[in-house]
Amino acid sequence: MYDDRLVIAGREFKSRLWVGTGKYKDFEETKKAIEVSGADVVTVAVRRVNITDRSKENLLDYLDPKKYIILPNTAGCYTVEDAVRYARLARAAGVSDLVKLEVLGDEKTLFPDTVGLLEAAKILVKEGFIVLPYTNDDPIVAKKLVDIGCPAVMPLAAPIGSGLGIRNPYNLKIIMETVKVPIVVDAGVGTASDAALAMEYGADAVLMNTAIAGAQDPIAMAEAMRYAVHAGRLAYKAGRIPRKLYATASSPIEGML
Amino acid sequence: MYDDRLVIAGREFKSRLWVGTGKYKDFEETKKAIEVSGADVVTVAVRRVNITDRSKENLLDYLDPKKYIILPNTAGCYTVEDAVRYARLARAAGVSDLVKLEVLGDEKTLFPDTVGLLEAAKILVKEGFIVLPYTNDDPIVAKKLVDIGCPAVMPLAAPIGSGLGIRNPYNLKIIMETVKVPIVVDAGVGTASDAALAMEYGADAVLMNTAIAGAQDPIAMAEAMRYAVHAGRLAYKAGRIPRKLYATASSPIEGML
Amino acid sequence: MYDDRLVIAGREFKSRLWVGTGKYKDFEETKKAIEVSGADVVTVAVRRVNITDRSKENLLDYLDPKKYIILPNTAGCYTVEDAVRYARLARAAGVSDLVKLEVLGDEKTLFPDTVGLLEAAKILVKEGFIVLPYTNDDPIVAKKLVDIGCPAVMPLAAPIGSGLGIRNPYNLKIIMETVKVPIVVDAGVGTASDAALAMEYGADAVLMNTAIAGAQDPIAMAEAMRYAVHAGRLAYKAGRIPRKLYATASSPIEGML
Amino acid sequence: MYDDRLVIAGREFKSRLWVGTGKYKDFEETKKAIEVSGADVVTVAVRRVNITDRSKENLLDYLDPKKYIILPNTAGCYTVEDAVRYARLARAAGVSDLVKLEVLGDEKTLFPDTVGLLEAAKILVKEGFIVLPYTNDDPIVAKKLVDIGCPAVMPLAAPIGSGLGIRNPYNLKIIMETVKVPIVVDAGVGTASDAALAMEYGADAVLMNTAIAGAQDPIAMAEAMRYAVHAGRLAYKAGRIPRKLYATASSPIEGML
Repeated sequence: MYDDRLVIAGREFKSRLWVGTGKYKDFEETKKAIEVSGADVVTVAVRRVNITDRSKENLLDYLDPKKYIILPNTAGCYTVEDAVRYARLARAAGVSDLVKLEVLGDEKTLFPDTVGLLEAAKILVKEGFIVLPYTNDDPIVAKKLVDIGCPAVMPLAAPIGSGLGIRNPYNLKIIMETVKVPIVVDAGVGTASDAALAMEYGADAVLMNTAIAGAQDPIAMAEAMRYAVHAGRLAYKAGRIPRKLYATASSPIEGML
Repeated sequence: MYDDRLVIAGREFKSRLWVGTGKYKDFEETKKAIEVSGADVVTVAVRRVNITDRSKENLLDYLDPKKYIILPNTAGCYTVEDAVRYARLARAAGVSDLVKLEVLGDEKTLFPDTVGLLEAAKILVKEGFIVLPYTNDDPIVAKKLVDIGCPAVMPLAAPIGSGLGIRNPYNLKIIMETVKVPIVVDAGVGTASDAALAMEYGADAVLMNTAIAGAQDPIAMAEAMRYAVHAGRLAYKAGRIPRKLYATASSPIEGML
Repeated sequence: MYDDRLVIAGREFKSRLWVGTGKYKDFEETKKAIEVSGADVVTVAVRRVNITDRSKENLLDYLDPKKYIILPNTAGCYTVEDAVRYARLARAAGVSDLVKLEVLGDEKTLFPDTVGLLEAAKILVKEGFIVLPYTNDDPIVAKKLVDIGCPAVMPLAAPIGSGLGIRNPYNLKIIMETVKVPIVVDAGVGTASDAALAMEYGADAVLMNTAIAGAQDPIAMAEAMRYAVHAGRLAYKAGRIPRKLYATASSPIEGML
Repeated sequence: MYDDRLVIAGREFKSRLWVGTGKYKDFEETKKAIEVSGADVVTVAVRRVNITDRSKENLLDYLDPKKYIILPNTAGCYTVEDAVRYARLARAAGVSDLVKLEVLGDEKTLFPDTVGLLEAAKILVKEGFIVLPYTNDDPIVAKKLVDIGCPAVMPLAAPIGSGLGIRNPYNLKIIMETVKVPIVVDAGVGTASDAALAMEYGADAVLMNTAIAGAQDPIAMAEAMRYAVHAGRLAYKAGRIPRKLYATASSPIEGML
């Protein structure tokens, strides 16, 4: 197996599968799915889940802080102010100076508001946060985010919770050509092959929540995703055979994504 | 994990990844890749590889018969006579009464000649062979093969060695509706996600050779395929989330393959 | 505009859109849709529509024989005997020595039974019929049909009436490389872009019925198909720009179908 | 045929195919291609083509202003200042108060810089321009543009000149659900079927340049595009048949784009 660890902003990640914590039946199921997934990055919505008040039931009681990197996120924030506020709250509570930054554009599609995102990222980077932005698949926006100081970008594969998989691998490819930071595909993955594809396209990691939590058997799907991400990464490194119309065709069908 | 073994003609298979033995650098690499792949079914071209003359260097010296199910195949046979002859040869040499039956239509595309295939299958089934036919993705041909007595069908995903993946999941789906025997997707897989997809569509197993042997690093790709098949199967059993245009859309995008 | 007529078995066809006559509300609508489509080849199911008994209401009363080439077809035939019988019946009634030969494999999918098709084609070619076979998208079967004496092959895009469009352009491409007769894509077209795509892939003509007759407004769809086939053919001849990841990319994304 | 005219900001457009003027061999070819395309909207890069200095050779000498709506565009502008300047220049020269607004993000991909685009749009709308913005396929950006006062949005199908067609029909669909102004698909169309597809997805018009000008035979491709856009629009209005796995399947494969 490859020694193939992911490093972002000086931090090393053991797994290339990052997981969310929403939509599970209860904290027990959340905990079990996360364990089975093999993820070490676990993202938590500061606005929705109590991770700051230790006097009440707290997701962090279920997640061993030595085992997991807790990544606070600003899900549910539709303004720059809100997103910045919840990021600060998480840091102030000692959770992390990492933040998965979400500034959402509407409640229907949960698409990012990239204008707001850029603004919030600017503020938080200046305040010393390690900002991992949830963004669309536009390479120009990705470049702006990196120019601001984001050490990775997290483009969507498809709308949050849609399960549609990577709708535009071409844009993903252009993002990879355009910025030289790790790319974490975030949102839209529906099943194992979607995760494998993301890794084969060259993504550095995949973040998902609904695909696991919303499956009929979340624990089995967590395991499927663990192996799919590993398989996709290995296949990417192993160097796949060229696509041809048939084996004896003289030229490969190059560049097909 | 599911207790989810595959049974064909009363034989139980531990792995849902079946592998070929062609195109490797040498027998050592073949052996190593097969080990890493976790496969227990290993198919061998009777016409090309010596598995019948034990006095010469023999692939079977590298494959522990207690560990692997050797599946002789009739690759390289373009006539009913040839295919039948090599199947008999393998059985006579004590290799197996299983045969992966190939009757090829031309040397360029290596598409099956389904007319010849049906004829050869009929002969071999009558002689007591367990015939696993390499066929096209036509459900009517699949049904004829099952009616003849084949206990599984092995439709191609795409031409042998093409690496194009499953070109027509619709036909695969119709085959699964039409026949009630295990489906082993055979030929055309290019990379890990292709294997995961085949399993997610409901295939019972995937057979591949070039995708592993022809990868830049065959051993790494063998491992990728092991995990991809496992991931795809788990995802199939786990029950994926529905596809929607976005999470709050009222209706799923049903049936999209 | 190109002088770009289609010739099959010495007969010249003005339009590359061929149409069926089933599923319309009445003969008036059938007639109108065909007129608007600009088709000159009109196929009629000998088994279903009365075209042989001139004493009863007859579709041919609505179709000017000077304007249209009536192509009898053997839709609804599931055996060699039936297909051969209806082809002979049509010729005996003076309709045509052309036949669109269908030998169907089952009532559910209406896939061709290619074994039966080859047998029936052999019989009818020997009897002097001009056999245009409705077949699957298998290049080996296509080659056998041409070897038997069919002057064109008519592979399906997708199952009859499915509206799925060309499910496997790769196979279509391989058929075009394998046989040197005109290819008429038959069955499966759902909307205008499907027809345009078929022509852009290099098909010589497209035959459709349900896509027009089953549309909410069959007359408007007939017009759409007329222009789509024309547009697709023109685009094929005009030579499209290469696909690239972006305009300044150094290499095209070649061969993508 | 439908009475189906397109109206944007009170202006009526006869054709739903809009064309550019770049990359042709000479003005004669440009003129001929435009004529054959049937377009009435012709877009011209103010920065690149002389349309303001009537004393020099001028594209407008070749285009009858009574026949065509000249749509100045700000291609080649990478800053808000530049884009605004060229828009003003075109209006000052009496060309039009319409502007196809481009603020590009980089020279490699020619993706829009949506942050700059929004800023420039705000300025120009305030100055009374009718701003038609070339944008990415992000529905949140589209909504912001409409909120600013753009009477239509022009999302890319794929990067300018890429010929990749509509890479993300899902986003296009979401844009159509999100804003209630006409959608003109702009950039990325490669061949006739791409244009037909855009219209079938529900686009109100398609703008293209390279697909025609860069074809081996631009005049034939112009004609192909004319018919493709017409066919796609008609098919959209005619109401296509549902997609099913096969005709007798009980449920359609709904929503597949």
